[in-house]
Amino acid sequence: MSEYILNLLPLEEGELAEFEAVAPDAVHVRAHRSTVTPEQLAAATVIFGWPKAEDMKQAVKLKWFQTMWAGTDEYMGKLPEGVLFTSSSGSNSRSVAENMLSSLMALCRRLPAYRDNQRAHVWRDEGPAKTILNGTVLVAGAGHVGADFAKLCQGLGARTIGLKRTVAGPIEGFDEVRTIAELDALLPQADVVALVMPHSPQTVGMFNAQRISLMKDDAVLISSGRGSVLDQDALAEAMRAGKLWGAALDVTNPEPLPADSPLWDTPRLLLTPHVAGGMHLDITRRLCVEMALDNLRRYLAGEKLKNIVK
Amino acid sequence: MSEYILNLLPLEEGELAEFEAVAPDAVHVRAHRSTVTPEQLAAATVIFGWPKAEDMKQAVKLKWFQTMWAGTDEYMGKLPEGVLFTSSSGSNSRSVAENMLSSLMALCRRLPAYRDNQRAHVWRDEGPAKTILNGTVLVAGAGHVGADFAKLCQGLGARTIGLKRTVAGPIEGFDEVRTIAELDALLPQADVVALVMPHSPQTVGMFNAQRISLMKDDAVLISSGRGSVLDQDALAEAMRAGKLWGAALDVTNPEPLPADSPLWDTPRLLLTPHVAGGMHLDITRRLCVEMALDNLRRYLAGEKLKNIVK
Repeated sequence: MSEYILNLLPLEEGELAEFEAVAPDAVHVRAHRSTVTPEQLAAATVIFGWPKAEDMKQAVKLKWFQTMWAGTDEYMGKLPEGVLFTSSSGSNSRSVAENMLSSLMALCRRLPAYRDNQRAHVWRDEGPAKTILNGTVLVAGAGHVGADFAKLCQGLGARTIGLKRTVAGPIEGFDEVRTIAELDALLPQADVVALVMPHSPQTVGMFNAQRISLMKDDAVLISSGRGSVLDQDALAEAMRAGKLWGAALDVTNPEPLPADSPLWDTPRLLLTPHVAGGMHLDITRRLCVEMALDNLRRYLAGEKLKNIVK
Repeated sequence: MSEYILNLLPLEEGELAEFEAVAPDAVHVRAHRSTVTPEQLAAATVIFGWPKAEDMKQAVKLKWFQTMWAGTDEYMGKLPEGVLFTSSSGSNSRSVAENMLSSLMALCRRLPAYRDNQRAHVWRDEGPAKTILNGTVLVAGAGHVGADFAKLCQGLGARTIGLKRTVAGPIEGFDEVRTIAELDALLPQADVVALVMPHSPQTVGMFNAQRISLMKDDAVLISSGRGSVLDQDALAEAMRAGKLWGAALDVTNPEPLPADSPLWDTPRLLLTPHVAGGMHLDITRRLCVEMALDNLRRYLAGEKLKNIVK
């Protein structure tokens, strides 16, 4: 039986032809999550992209679904029984890593303060800057994003330590990989601490007042995983008391951050509205397309797919 | 005759001992530019650091002077006849390069706009970001700073082209080195244009409206050499009309920038008050010390010094 491939990826010109070249016998149908029809969903044996989770029950012939995101929570319990589910894990890691480095370097050079001064037409030297050259960067969460960020930091001359629940050998980008159980022992030697952990019962509130207090007084904190990992109120309080060189949060709890949150006006804290990943860079979009093409080839050849969720 | 070394460098603990180890027979005297005495100046055969230019005529026994800056303009015509004059050229290039990269990446991720939103307590996605991965970075001025900046850009996956007055072979950090005469031909292919040229009759106003117009509409301009190189009014006008993804200026003309300059409020433009170099990073200070130690060893051994100005 030939495949009916419902392609909801944000394709650019010529990219559908790449799917047709990999699966010349399949029916290829392009649609968008907001305009996809019940008939298309009912006919699909394969879906790529970002369909609405509540639409998935209509996909009665579905055998395989690959989401275009790294995160998969929204589809849990919403897919028909027996559907093979894969993600695009890793597709946005370069984008998130670059955003983290941008925020880190901006803090090192006090760019938020200079931006504030610029708006007030004030030309004033804000004092010493910071570099990660020869510094130690501790990354809690040594997955795709953490490793990509660590690689960029190594390129700038930093020593990098990745923390995982279980250590199973070296990971490119990290000079050392240690277990998350060693976090408290390692915090006092880190010049930069990056939180890139997912939301889970184990991570909620994990980075609390006590752990913030273990950081160097002039360290930088970067949070880009899930907002729930960090105790925001504790961070705001510590920074108001002078702790830390700076902090950059791309994720908060909740999101959007309420307008009356003390985080907005916390000194030396830079807030961005969860824009590190997503499709903010076209390389992320293209990588999603390539991951779909690669898994489609594997699927048709009967090989094991990459990024299997369940 | 033994040397009298007047050391005005900002030394930290233990560093004077390093000078004493290199020159055990010399008299080593530490002082600061604001507290140095006429007697010390009159006795000095060697001076390191940042003395006031007008004090130099008192240094009647001076044989060699090494300034702690890369720039040497302030001492021109102010040194006694026959004094060997060396600089600390290259000592701040890493700091300037990191500042340039910080500003570039901040623009790529729209951090100035997010900072403005933060201050207004606004959580809003400002749209696509930019990366230099696989992009072309054109650096006008392939000296220490330009090469260090290019190396950092290569580390982030960019192709780099350096422009010099005369090309004398490859330079580390640059994929290609071309002559400044090719600037106009290369501008249309650059995703980032960095100006790191010194002030000179050849460079004044060199980056004018016509050259800005040759840039890609979504390119980024970084200016960190001397403000006089760039036609600021032309830049402000072009950017108000929508040209360029962004621009970051650490140098302006004049400095400080007058409060009524149109630059302050030019959209997508980030201004910093000439803070890329100087002693903003301690690695710059330490490198100045190391350059002085290295040249002192050479001086005592009768070898040719590095960074000879005249």
